[in-house]
Amino acid sequence: MINTLVEKIVKRNAPVVVGLDPMLAYVPEQIKKAAFEEFGETLEGAAEAIWQFNKGIVDAVCDLIPAVKPQIAMYEQFGVPGLAAFEKTCAYCKEKGLVVIGDIKRGDIGSTSGAYAAGHLGRVTVGSSTYSGFSEDFVTVNPYLGSDGVKPFIDVCREENKGIFVLVKTSNPSSGEFQDQLVDGTPLYELVARKVVEWGEECMGDTYSNVGCVVGATYPEMGKTLRKLMPKTYILVPGYGAQGGKAEDLVHYFNADGLGAIVNSSRGIIAAYKQEKYQSFGPEHYADASRQAVIDMIQDINGALKG
Amino acid sequence: MINTLVEKIVKRNAPVVVGLDPMLAYVPEQIKKAAFEEFGETLEGAAEAIWQFNKGIVDAVCDLIPAVKPQIAMYEQFGVPGLAAFEKTCAYCKEKGLVVIGDIKRGDIGSTSGAYAAGHLGRVTVGSSTYSGFSEDFVTVNPYLGSDGVKPFIDVCREENKGIFVLVKTSNPSSGEFQDQLVDGTPLYELVARKVVEWGEECMGDTYSNVGCVVGATYPEMGKTLRKLMPKTYILVPGYGAQGGKAEDLVHYFNADGLGAIVNSSRGIIAAYKQEKYQSFGPEHYADASRQAVIDMIQDINGALKG
Repeated sequence: MINTLVEKIVKRNAPVVVGLDPMLAYVPEQIKKAAFEEFGETLEGAAEAIWQFNKGIVDAVCDLIPAVKPQIAMYEQFGVPGLAAFEKTCAYCKEKGLVVIGDIKRGDIGSTSGAYAAGHLGRVTVGSSTYSGFSEDFVTVNPYLGSDGVKPFIDVCREENKGIFVLVKTSNPSSGEFQDQLVDGTPLYELVARKVVEWGEECMGDTYSNVGCVVGATYPEMGKTLRKLMPKTYILVPGYGAQGGKAEDLVHYFNADGLGAIVNSSRGIIAAYKQEKYQSFGPEHYADASRQAVIDMIQDINGALKG
Repeated sequence: MINTLVEKIVKRNAPVVVGLDPMLAYVPEQIKKAAFEEFGETLEGAAEAIWQFNKGIVDAVCDLIPAVKPQIAMYEQFGVPGLAAFEKTCAYCKEKGLVVIGDIKRGDIGSTSGAYAAGHLGRVTVGSSTYSGFSEDFVTVNPYLGSDGVKPFIDVCREENKGIFVLVKTSNPSSGEFQDQLVDGTPLYELVARKVVEWGEECMGDTYSNVGCVVGATYPEMGKTLRKLMPKTYILVPGYGAQGGKAEDLVHYFNADGLGAIVNSSRGIIAAYKQEKYQSFGPEHYADASRQAVIDMIQDINGALKG
């Protein structure tokens, strides 16, 4: 699956991924109104609103980008109807030719990790049939439980040609509390990175591994070190834009081939129409504002890469 | 919520929790047959089978135990229908007077952790109404992202009188890969434990905190150390039984008051009828086998505590 992702990045000349993390507060009134008229002010109504909101954005940006990253928490908060909207969003994005990175940050032990892996990347068997509960192309995985929490995901990746991104250094302010702790002079995130490289060797694509990692845009010095440490690992980079990461900081997350990283923006794209810069689009043209924000983001990052 | 859990543990004289982690392979043929007849060999059929299986067990054991711990991965693998069965199971257990510990091991940053917290422990607002997407009493939380991943859960716990159990030292063989790494001579799990104590002070019940922790039964020496380090923290202890943890190993997870820990068994209870010891019950009386296994587990643990 990493081969497919790389191909699409090259084809679109766009090392970016749009985070589909819808909050109801981002959804324009006209969409909420229609959804609530049909389903009431219910969980079903909320789910319909975020699905229609997503659909508008996906339709407006799908020709520009290689991938989307729906954040499952934003759907899970609306319970079962919300998760149905997550599933529908993933399926629709795949229909539109996008690679789907499920930002699920799951991680458990043994057969339990296996169940998450089967549910999100693989298949479950029911009697004599098999089904995909959800069907992302990649998912994010939390490494705190060690190899036997991660390997069940890798097994499924190998069987199904899928991929994962393992959390190494997250973008949030307190990520250092545990991740930066020094173990014999080496920060924990580097120990995790070394394991990611080891796990990645078991599941290689052509140039890059199907086992990628997550390193926040907000820690560019660490990104630089980690890039060198893990040359065949694709880095998923959250934290650009709204969280403060700048394009010039991101140059060192890429390899000399111009590949090796994919930068996420969520709020900065999907709620673009709420920014001063794009507010002339107005809420009724929110998706066009998102399209313009994607164009600007690609230009910003490619500009920094060329500079 | 920790007060409620402690009350129920004392009332039942049973510091145990039954893990509702159904695999289709555990579900007796007669239940699967009925479910597949109604819904086909589909995700809906699988969801119905695990729900009926759970219901049988809950009915058979609910007067003996204070709490259940459904493992969401086992439901999530069956997609949206599976998650509907998770929700139904949680609601049914609450109806039966049980405390519900959602084993979800979620953890993200800021507003995303907030969304998980709202979805599982709190409420979401849709227009002028509020809803609980899922409604566990406690959930398990992964600490790898640091304080700003955990605090949104604690905020909801305070508002809604709920609780969390933060992963400190997990029961799996490779948990030491990162958790045991020494930071200035102190293992990482102890650093996490100290943070759990700090977070717990913000959300105290009468004697214990609403912020508990997870320490596997398979690491009794660490359990002993952690018990002393975190006197007001309730310890959720997985790994008893099928994973190898023994009752005599668990004594040091408890405080002198006989409280402070709650021991989980999943497979050992819910698939008891498959063990030689209980096989005379037969698949049609699987729930009675589970009841006997619960009685034996309580006796085993209370025996060790008295010894």
